[in-house]
Amino acid sequence: MDLTVSVIGSGVAAPDTDTSAARVGELLATAGAVVVCGGLGGVMAAVCRGARAAGGRTIGVLPGSDPAAANQWVDVALPTGMGEARNVLVVRAGRAVIAIGGGFGTLSELAFARKLQVPVVGLETWALPDDGILHVDTPDEAVRVALEAALPPPA
Amino acid sequence: MDLTVSVIGSGVAAPDTDTSAARVGELLATAGAVVVCGGLGGVMAAVCRGARAAGGRTIGVLPGSDPAAANQWVDVALPTGMGEARNVLVVRAGRAVIAIGGGFGTLSELAFARKLQVPVVGLETWALPDDGILHVDTPDEAVRVALEAALPPPA
Amino acid sequence: MDLTVSVIGSGVAAPDTDTSAARVGELLATAGAVVVCGGLGGVMAAVCRGARAAGGRTIGVLPGSDPAAANQWVDVALPTGMGEARNVLVVRAGRAVIAIGGGFGTLSELAFARKLQVPVVGLETWALPDDGILHVDTPDEAVRVALEAALPPPA
Amino acid sequence: MDLTVSVIGSGVAAPDTDTSAARVGELLATAGAVVVCGGLGGVMAAVCRGARAAGGRTIGVLPGSDPAAANQWVDVALPTGMGEARNVLVVRAGRAVIAIGGGFGTLSELAFARKLQVPVVGLETWALPDDGILHVDTPDEAVRVALEAALPPPA
Repeated sequence: MDLTVSVIGSGVAAPDTDTSAARVGELLATAGAVVVCGGLGGVMAAVCRGARAAGGRTIGVLPGSDPAAANQWVDVALPTGMGEARNVLVVRAGRAVIAIGGGFGTLSELAFARKLQVPVVGLETWALPDDGILHVDTPDEAVRVALEAALPPPA
Repeated sequence: MDLTVSVIGSGVAAPDTDTSAARVGELLATAGAVVVCGGLGGVMAAVCRGARAAGGRTIGVLPGSDPAAANQWVDVALPTGMGEARNVLVVRAGRAVIAIGGGFGTLSELAFARKLQVPVVGLETWALPDDGILHVDTPDEAVRVALEAALPPPA
Repeated sequence: MDLTVSVIGSGVAAPDTDTSAARVGELLATAGAVVVCGGLGGVMAAVCRGARAAGGRTIGVLPGSDPAAANQWVDVALPTGMGEARNVLVVRAGRAVIAIGGGFGTLSELAFARKLQVPVVGLETWALPDDGILHVDTPDEAVRVALEAALPPPA
Repeated sequence: MDLTVSVIGSGVAAPDTDTSAARVGELLATAGAVVVCGGLGGVMAAVCRGARAAGGRTIGVLPGSDPAAANQWVDVALPTGMGEARNVLVVRAGRAVIAIGGGFGTLSELAFARKLQVPVVGLETWALPDDGILHVDTPDEAVRVALEAALPPPA
């Protein structure tokens, strides 16, 4: 079975987080991990772009029902039609989660990851006292820590 | 249509938050609001107990598939079978949300409420910079602020 | 805990099924059951109208995120934002299900009810060989059979 | 974007339907389609086995929260934790659906596919008057018809 890592963050493009996300995607692809994300823009598009450029594969778990809403670097679009409840699915899909920036949607995913005990790495994202998030400073560190912390994939 | 207020918080019983939750339930019932919660223990049980003691009505949106998991003060049990994804449903069900204490599950609900622009009142709960949560100090204030902030119910 | 009965059927108004649905709602309310439905028009509106006219209570589990989409006889609107996946929630919410007429959405609910072993009564609806549906000929019979077959509510 | 085809059917192994499902998986893989299924046993396992043997890729959308529940031929396991509500996700994930045998769970998926206007091909499965299902007699015909009927994938 493939190792999956979920990447979450803002859906609005922003130079800093997008650059980080693209690098995270590149490194995950190089490590052979499948990137799962929410399938839309901003961090989601950048991580897919980075992964694809490095020959990797990407899955977009969309809130709406139209696969055409996926960014162009999504290989497999999964339109859920479930709105924001799809955030739970994004978190559950990864053996680890990397959060890059992000607003309240990302916060909901961070909280779910902690609740569900999926290891979660944070880069320029929400921080709370005793949050259990593995905070890092660079995309390279994010991927290294995420791969180390990832739950073992089933045989 | 009835006015609904969702009450969220820890599923583990604790004297302080349970006392607050029971008072919140009592005041919501007195104001004619239907209490919606996750249907289980701790804050969820206490708010239902308080509401029922004041003649109010309660709805429990359960994570599992067995209605018998609901606390004994739930009038209408809605077993979703959706696990933690039911948190989104709890948030969406209220015209306002009151958070009392709580852990990462509650944090996910606070984040969803903010993302979905449902007014949310916080009592002894998570606080973040610029979180948009209406922080209060007492159960009475929580109910007053929640009823003022509640989205208008449809006619 | 209240006894809940879910009523499913076409969302498009039709004289025959709407008359049946209103009578079903009236009888369920008289028996003290809470009516759960998908909250929209057609059979859903008619069953709520009938229940309310008899002093009963109604819950509408909506596919969208706006409670204003509920028909005017819904007491408590639960906007799920989950689209058609809310059909599973409607089925799970009842200790028995009554189907009146209906198209493919209703068929999905009938199938879920059978899969989840919720007793299901059919009136002028889909019929398949060995379908396990309790087919009846009148609204009065539908309510009588549903109340007899209903899973015992938790104490 | 990859073309996805969802394959649904009984979770219980049976020689006839499993042989059909393995052939369907093989042909879908040969055609370059990604196979999406519910990730468990019976038809789900057989279609994944066939696809993988032909060098294809497979996604399993699981009802539970443990990826280890996936059959061994699933590449990417998506544990939803949503129980039977994941059936809607399986149907939405495909640009066409192929049903092979199956019980009430499969019937719910057939109904959803029709409701959501996803083209659906049936092989040895449920049949109803005017059901709009494209009934076929062989696995080869099932794949041919499904690929012809599939909704166009987004660019």
